[in-house]
Amino acid sequence: MSQQVARVSLRDVQRPVAGELEQVVLELRRVIAADFPIVSEVNDHLLQMKGKLFRPTLLLLSHHAAGSKDPRAVTLAAVVELIHLATLVHDDSVDHSVLRRGLPTINALFSHQIAVIMGDYLYSRAIIELVRLDDHDALRVLARVTNEMTVGEMRQLEAHDKLAYGEGAYDELIRAKTASLLARFGMLLGMAFQITDDLLDYTEPEAVTGKPSGLDLREHKVTLPLIAALARMPAEGRRVVADLMQAAEPSDDLVADVIRLVEGAGGLETARQRALDLAQQAETELDVLPSSPARDALQGSIAYAVERHS
Amino acid sequence: MSQQVARVSLRDVQRPVAGELEQVVLELRRVIAADFPIVSEVNDHLLQMKGKLFRPTLLLLSHHAAGSKDPRAVTLAAVVELIHLATLVHDDSVDHSVLRRGLPTINALFSHQIAVIMGDYLYSRAIIELVRLDDHDALRVLARVTNEMTVGEMRQLEAHDKLAYGEGAYDELIRAKTASLLARFGMLLGMAFQITDDLLDYTEPEAVTGKPSGLDLREHKVTLPLIAALARMPAEGRRVVADLMQAAEPSDDLVADVIRLVEGAGGLETARQRALDLAQQAETELDVLPSSPARDALQGSIAYAVERHS
Repeated sequence: MSQQVARVSLRDVQRPVAGELEQVVLELRRVIAADFPIVSEVNDHLLQMKGKLFRPTLLLLSHHAAGSKDPRAVTLAAVVELIHLATLVHDDSVDHSVLRRGLPTINALFSHQIAVIMGDYLYSRAIIELVRLDDHDALRVLARVTNEMTVGEMRQLEAHDKLAYGEGAYDELIRAKTASLLARFGMLLGMAFQITDDLLDYTEPEAVTGKPSGLDLREHKVTLPLIAALARMPAEGRRVVADLMQAAEPSDDLVADVIRLVEGAGGLETARQRALDLAQQAETELDVLPSSPARDALQGSIAYAVERHS
Repeated sequence: MSQQVARVSLRDVQRPVAGELEQVVLELRRVIAADFPIVSEVNDHLLQMKGKLFRPTLLLLSHHAAGSKDPRAVTLAAVVELIHLATLVHDDSVDHSVLRRGLPTINALFSHQIAVIMGDYLYSRAIIELVRLDDHDALRVLARVTNEMTVGEMRQLEAHDKLAYGEGAYDELIRAKTASLLARFGMLLGMAFQITDDLLDYTEPEAVTGKPSGLDLREHKVTLPLIAALARMPAEGRRVVADLMQAAEPSDDLVADVIRLVEGAGGLETARQRALDLAQQAETELDVLPSSPARDALQGSIAYAVERHS
């Protein structure tokens, strides 16, 4: 792969493990099942909200690419998605987010209280399942990753003087957030994926308005496009950014202005380039694996991570 | 033990394990240590807030009473306290409580966001430590207990029509909350301890006002004294209770009225009797153990649980 990547759909990436992904959903349903009404209601909503299963896909593809045949792989993939879900439920509550994957968040639909308790419920169910699988390594890694994510969240929350927050701190944050189950490959891919996520917030037109949502800016989240742009922005532009950071609810015009300033100062281009560099490094990591459909799909997952539009 | 119990101080109960409890505090400090400033600040506050170490005491006493000599017991006792702490941090956030053990709660002193993240931090640290100890049974039991506690919390939160909430549901709640590491003994003692806690809220005069705090009533928490009293309260009294449940911030006079009504209808007496019954059952469980200072102290812990004043 040069700096150019082929266009790959998620469906292509998931093809070698499509059957197993269906089982992952069943396993997920089994592991979180409860006989308490409100827990079941929240579970039903979470299963509707269920995303692209990108993490289970990577786990299963890596498993096949490494030539392993552990019968626990499907359940482990469900547990990885479950821990991700538990994290999202708490993150949305901490960030007061109202939408996730186009559906209302648990804190918005139920309450903050229920979101806090449900996150704990899901996480402890994941641990119960890992103990049942008797997979000591998975437990060790997932407990460590969860703990690193909490520090990452704290880091994000703590960045009081948001504009002083540099690229080093941002790297640390997304590394902590995506610290990987799949070691280096996962970490590089995870970082590329996260930067692309942050970029889409500046670039992807919304269905209704036809304009980028700028949701991160509205929530005063400082991500790589803004960080990179600030270093090269004239004083006047920085003042507009500071205005936005001080506005409790920035106007649509102010958000659009900052997006234009970030683009003008090359913030989008720098972030895009950084995502592509990381994608290229991730691809290099795959060199050691023997050729297989799973390896090809992992290669495809890299292209998907940086080329997707949602 | 008849229905009468000897007066025992916590210090008496803890004497056989006093040296180990000092090590528990050091272990707790080690397990939660972080090199991230705000996490360290919260940790320092939590260590100040550290309670009576009742759970580590019971674990260590049971360990000795059973004649075991596992070098991991001290660390395990620290982890049990840590999981309890993590739960308190989330509970206080969910309940919007401002004081815990006479100190401001994490949500009050820092923020709800920090309380949610810190609870996750502490819990994942506990899991990391259990994985390190390689104690499969402890992991299994503690993950299960944590999960049951989340359902217990949900049950408490969900009791919308609080006055329809009966004794059966209350038992289920406190059983889920205290579901025990020490099997039957712990469960019986835990229930007696919890009922005593609920009772103290109605009976123990505060230092400043000299009157019971009635904090549970102010927070619309329905516990055994009220449940037992409602069954025998005349319609007029029930209306006063309903007024309190509908007041966002009940006045001191209204709280005092309901406390009097609960006492008049025999709610306190019923709860006290129930705590003593459970204490007696817990004591019967100890019959199988050989005589030892640890067993004597466990016996003392029962008296302490139901006779304490804070």
